[in-house]
Amino acid sequence: MHPRFFAPEAQASGELVTLPDEEGQHLTRVLRLGAGAAVRVFNGSGDEFESVVEAAAKDGVRVRLGEPRHPAPEASLQVTLAQAVLKGDKMDDVIRDAVMIGAKAIRPVLTARTETTAAILEKGRRQDRWERIAISSAKQCGRAVVPAILEPFTFEGLIDFQLHKWLAGPSIMLVEPGASKGAVPFSGLDVEPPSAVTVVVGPEGGWTPEEIEAAGVVCRLVTMGGRTLRADAMGLIAISAAYARWREF
Amino acid sequence: MHPRFFAPEAQASGELVTLPDEEGQHLTRVLRLGAGAAVRVFNGSGDEFESVVEAAAKDGVRVRLGEPRHPAPEASLQVTLAQAVLKGDKMDDVIRDAVMIGAKAIRPVLTARTETTAAILEKGRRQDRWERIAISSAKQCGRAVVPAILEPFTFEGLIDFQLHKWLAGPSIMLVEPGASKGAVPFSGLDVEPPSAVTVVVGPEGGWTPEEIEAAGVVCRLVTMGGRTLRADAMGLIAISAAYARWREF
Repeated sequence: MHPRFFAPEAQASGELVTLPDEEGQHLTRVLRLGAGAAVRVFNGSGDEFESVVEAAAKDGVRVRLGEPRHPAPEASLQVTLAQAVLKGDKMDDVIRDAVMIGAKAIRPVLTARTETTAAILEKGRRQDRWERIAISSAKQCGRAVVPAILEPFTFEGLIDFQLHKWLAGPSIMLVEPGASKGAVPFSGLDVEPPSAVTVVVGPEGGWTPEEIEAAGVVCRLVTMGGRTLRADAMGLIAISAAYARWREF
Repeated sequence: MHPRFFAPEAQASGELVTLPDEEGQHLTRVLRLGAGAAVRVFNGSGDEFESVVEAAAKDGVRVRLGEPRHPAPEASLQVTLAQAVLKGDKMDDVIRDAVMIGAKAIRPVLTARTETTAAILEKGRRQDRWERIAISSAKQCGRAVVPAILEPFTFEGLIDFQLHKWLAGPSIMLVEPGASKGAVPFSGLDVEPPSAVTVVVGPEGGWTPEEIEAAGVVCRLVTMGGRTLRADAMGLIAISAAYARWREF
């Protein structure tokens, strides 16, 4: 299979586009390709083209877009993963996995037990890092869409947003078995597929009782089996379950 | 929550049991607990006890088993994950995740594109390592059952075994979208839950056409969505989907 590169400005066959610096360096330094190489170029918005490298010089890599092609199909069930920011590089793995399986967007959330702040995220340029990871994962899994890494919300901000976005599809918030009397098992959710769903996953230390109570107003509180699932695996598990229940798989 | 320790010989309340060396060292050196500490002890076969450390000496840690308790419930859908051995320490992650979500057993498989051999596995004591990982993951996720790490099979051995074990439940082999005309989407599987299922996952390089053909006789060939999923994530995704479809979640 020809290697795939991300070029957001790629729009139509016949165009000559310059790859972003990182992509160009990947092409020349890692894969050691040059003029004449056959590659694929996708724009992150769903378009992909068979392409040929026309020039690979110090000032950039230029590719000529050829025939459009069909990339991996996007999921018809649109899942947004609202994920409490996890420790260390666990969040990187969550984003990589969510993009791979087919999430439409990822929303980082700062909860009561999240061990970071918006200022730390900003200072560490975490948003940029997460966007690079999303691009890299899209390249690997054959998607021509790069899911949006949405701006981080506080938990209160998320609840407020979901309150006003209720019509965009239901939200399900994953809770530990026994964490809330109002929780239903996953199998208790509607059988009919929604067109969109927001999956809300907590941090390593779980939700506070106050968060669970506040979320109960706008989210279905849902348990997934009786075992303790790791926070960094929960998103992938929940999206897999949603895809299975609502016939995306 | 009291820390949990694994002691296969723990059978009944009132007994005084010695923890295995590794578990004893974890108790004294990592958690720095001593005589009088309240702990939980599980035997890997489903029993768990509130317990108290009676002695923590150089020759071993002894605990007195108290009241039996209810550990995390085991899944009623029994999933065996037959997983092609992956590169490096990826297999460790697969085993950790499969135990966490609730698999009953894990069967390592040597396929045409597996980059290792039975001799290498033996020399590297991989089976011992995988068993330690299964114990460690069971401790974390609250299970009192440590899933079996079954003896590695060749792919041919697996097919032969499944042929004779057909009545123990269906096998589903995950294949790439487009890999086989005989493949069905996951949503095409029976709605009625089987009591047991074997999920067969290939290596990084995928199955050979010959393997897919041979498996078609004893397995349902199944695709999960249209994107390329990583081999090390496939097991967790497939078990999540099976739990969702067959109401374990």
